[in-house]
Amino acid sequence: MVETVAIIGMGLIGSSLARGLKNSDFTRRIVAIDCDESVCHTLIDLNIADDVTNDFARGVAQADIVVLCVPVGAMGDVMEKIAPHLKKGAIITDVGSSKISVIKAIEPFLPDDIEFVPAHPIAGTEFSGPESGFATLFHKAWCILTPLDTTPIKAVEHITHMWEACGAVVEIMDAQQHDLILGITSHLPHLIAYTIVGTANDLEDDLKSDVVKFSASGFRDFTRIAASDPVMWRDVFLNNKDAVLDTLGRFSRDLDMLRTAIEDDDGDYLYQKFKETRKIRKEIIEQGQA
Amino acid sequence: MVETVAIIGMGLIGSSLARGLKNSDFTRRIVAIDCDESVCHTLIDLNIADDVTNDFARGVAQADIVVLCVPVGAMGDVMEKIAPHLKKGAIITDVGSSKISVIKAIEPFLPDDIEFVPAHPIAGTEFSGPESGFATLFHKAWCILTPLDTTPIKAVEHITHMWEACGAVVEIMDAQQHDLILGITSHLPHLIAYTIVGTANDLEDDLKSDVVKFSASGFRDFTRIAASDPVMWRDVFLNNKDAVLDTLGRFSRDLDMLRTAIEDDDGDYLYQKFKETRKIRKEIIEQGQA
Repeated sequence: MVETVAIIGMGLIGSSLARGLKNSDFTRRIVAIDCDESVCHTLIDLNIADDVTNDFARGVAQADIVVLCVPVGAMGDVMEKIAPHLKKGAIITDVGSSKISVIKAIEPFLPDDIEFVPAHPIAGTEFSGPESGFATLFHKAWCILTPLDTTPIKAVEHITHMWEACGAVVEIMDAQQHDLILGITSHLPHLIAYTIVGTANDLEDDLKSDVVKFSASGFRDFTRIAASDPVMWRDVFLNNKDAVLDTLGRFSRDLDMLRTAIEDDDGDYLYQKFKETRKIRKEIIEQGQA
Repeated sequence: MVETVAIIGMGLIGSSLARGLKNSDFTRRIVAIDCDESVCHTLIDLNIADDVTNDFARGVAQADIVVLCVPVGAMGDVMEKIAPHLKKGAIITDVGSSKISVIKAIEPFLPDDIEFVPAHPIAGTEFSGPESGFATLFHKAWCILTPLDTTPIKAVEHITHMWEACGAVVEIMDAQQHDLILGITSHLPHLIAYTIVGTANDLEDDLKSDVVKFSASGFRDFTRIAASDPVMWRDVFLNNKDAVLDTLGRFSRDLDMLRTAIEDDDGDYLYQKFKETRKIRKEIIEQGQA
């Protein structure tokens, strides 16, 4: 059992982690840290942490594990701020959706006696803020750890146990592989959903109200994804730029080919392409991921 | 009460309609017609129609209402085939996802004593075939009717009652407006989903298996949409070409602007765009469409 876990950034993910850990026997004490005073007040009302503070130095001082749950663009600043106040031997971990950029942002500020285990729990909803979190968010979800060459196994094990205590299934891979996979499975789909909902948003008012009204025909699924936290996603795209732009390039080429097929009335091409995509859905169902 | 309804094409939509009508008191008799013998055998086992046949002439002969539930590309051929065998005064209706093209395909074969009420129930799943249908598919779903200038109100009322008997909410608009709205809310989202899942499908095998494994991060929602019936969707894109290509053009321009913002590290642009799209989701929730 770990004595104290401090969580910095008490939004959807941070507050769900606090709730999950509170329900487990992984730690004796949870310290919730957030720079936003109104979030701190909400946290006191929610009663999901043993201590709530907006004082980063005080919050991390006793922590054995510090979990950074801030947008990936803020990771470096937060690490710089807390570095001098960390307890000797503490483990730093994060929940960022891009891993190479987070490692680059954190490493320069990492004291010698502190270990870093980069992590990414693959879970979320389109809602934000501490009220939106829930204890079972990570239940049966993957959590990918991307330890550095220098990260001791012991530290990786601690973070593995923390996520398992919240019901997650831990997988280890290198940061580059993570960023490539998530670029395809998560970042590109979000970019596309934001685009299509944005396209609809720019329509004349009467057409837009009909789009909302008849959204059940497919569009609705995209609006859920495109309702995700704008700060988080702005940071993801800027911080996994290479993988996102590469995947986007492939996507755009494929879309051009489908457009050409429609223009040319090439039904055979469309049919072949649409038949193939059904297979992937089948594999997802077979692997219990649906 | 209508004496006989004949349904041609007993896939997901046709078989759901049969089930819905069987549970209602709209008609005394349902005739299920399908050109595929194996589908006819399944229909007999399912026991969702009073008569099952692959003989179109015999099937429609006694029908007061004939519902065409075939892919939009097949509507004209089916109409030509059944036209000489229709009962005087019968009403023809359809369930096609594009309306201008279906009207164009059917009108040339429409006998003088037959009324035509073009229709589109906005409901479906990613599954196909008669086993996939269920009676509540249309429950609380919109059904859009796009009557011609010459369609008598009486015929529109009959078809309205038929869909209401299945739990749908009927809306009347003109065919062009329908095609434009559905191009945005349904056809473009499907095209995009097919594209992104196709892009993933073309990845090297080990990367592809990781994409399936970690699909929960956003990609999974697209695979459901891209698992929809390939024949139906091939026909939709070829038959609502103008609206689809127009909407696709707007989408591509918007996507280019987001790509440029990522390339230029323009976080303000991304944040503004992502903030706006949240509003549409809110409107969908407020209108009870979520």
